Amino acid sequence: MSTVFRLDSSIRNEGSITRSIASTLEAALVEELDDATVIRREIGLTPLPSNAWALSASTRLVPVDEQSPEQKQAVALSRELGDELEKSDAYIFATPFYNFGVSQHVKTWVDLLITDPRFAPGAHTIAGRPAFVIIARGGGYGPGTPREGWDHATGWLTRVFADVWGLDMHVIESELTLADVTPAMAELRGMAADNLRKAHSAAIEHGKSLANRLSDSEAA
Amino acid sequence: MSTVFRLDSSIRNEGSITRSIASTLEAALVEELDDATVIRREIGLTPLPSNAWALSASTRLVPVDEQSPEQKQAVALSRELGDELEKSDAYIFATPFYNFGVSQHVKTWVDLLITDPRFAPGAHTIAGRPAFVIIARGGGYGPGTPREGWDHATGWLTRVFADVWGLDMHVIESELTLADVTPAMAELRGMAADNLRKAHSAAIEHGKSLANRLSDSEAA
Repeated sequence: MSTVFRLDSSIRNEGSITRSIASTLEAALVEELDDATVIRREIGLTPLPSNAWALSASTRLVPVDEQSPEQKQAVALSRELGDELEKSDAYIFATPFYNFGVSQHVKTWVDLLITDPRFAPGAHTIAGRPAFVIIARGGGYGPGTPREGWDHATGWLTRVFADVWGLDMHVIESELTLADVTPAMAELRGMAADNLRKAHSAAIEHGKSLANRLSDSEAA
Repeated sequence: MSTVFRLDSSIRNEGSITRSIASTLEAALVEELDDATVIRREIGLTPLPSNAWALSASTRLVPVDEQSPEQKQAVALSRELGDELEKSDAYIFATPFYNFGVSQHVKTWVDLLITDPRFAPGAHTIAGRPAFVIIARGGGYGPGTPREGWDHATGWLTRVFADVWGLDMHVIESELTLADVTPAMAELRGMAADNLRKAHSAAIEHGKSLANRLSDSEAA
């Protein structure tokens, strides 16, 4: 039986593009592999505590029996997050782009995980496992656009997922997601709809191929 | 009379490099300009609430009398942060580098500020004012080092401070700050000490020239 971890971090539930694409991928996967277990972690609407990372990081040199109850709780939370990743065979990370950078909640989640020795740089506990990173950007950031170079999130996400944790990372992205609600972007609505359609198609393909990959390794 | 805003975001008090360099700059400034008022905002040890940004962002289309008490509180917090910036003539931002990216607490602070129309892209409320961004990185990230390209924080900080808010931004940085406590970095300790000395010297110079700039504009 395969286990898939899904992270959601949009600060919206209704109307969230990353949640919707992640659900498309998950549905395509489960349709092919109906005994898959999905572990969900939601950090956009139910954020991790803002003091947990500093508390967990501060215990590095403190023996367990000298740690405060708050420190122990923070370490337990980082371990819980680490357990979710370690026991999973594949990952769906829904990580929207906010204010030209990474979601504050995703950074908090990664910071906390990195305090767990299993997810510190060099540990490679989950290296080689497949990960699907779903990114939605409200505007356009491609070559030749006025905001080319303003995406400071994808580089960092790739650094952590592919380089630090060594995951086999695939990006599914959709741009111009604010075109429908932004009058100044009205001319871009056709392109936005096309981007979104392509992202959902890619999610279906990735869901199916992930199902094959996981059932092959179950059979092996 | 001049007002200077200082942001601290290290998760350490004792031993924090960015706090120490910020204090050097502040002391050099106050020595020259003794009637300067310093507004302090500390977000590393006393983080902003993790749900405030989503709450404040969600009020964008909600009339004030229909906002929940929690939404009103989040909007009030973003306004308070905005007031601190608007009434200041210059800025000291102490922003350590964590896990190859920006401090989660700095991203939270910026996200919250951007929900305030005065600090949204295009508003330029504080454009042209001087800002000193103090960055400390534990390792080395320069050209030719194994981690060249792994600094995903400075680009985003520059984007927000210089491009989005239009500040006249100056960076004071110190690398290899973990050399003293990391046995594998023992050979780099001399270079680390030299970096730190240079950063403090730069902070003194910047503090003095800021004092001149502010007293010139007071006199004008």
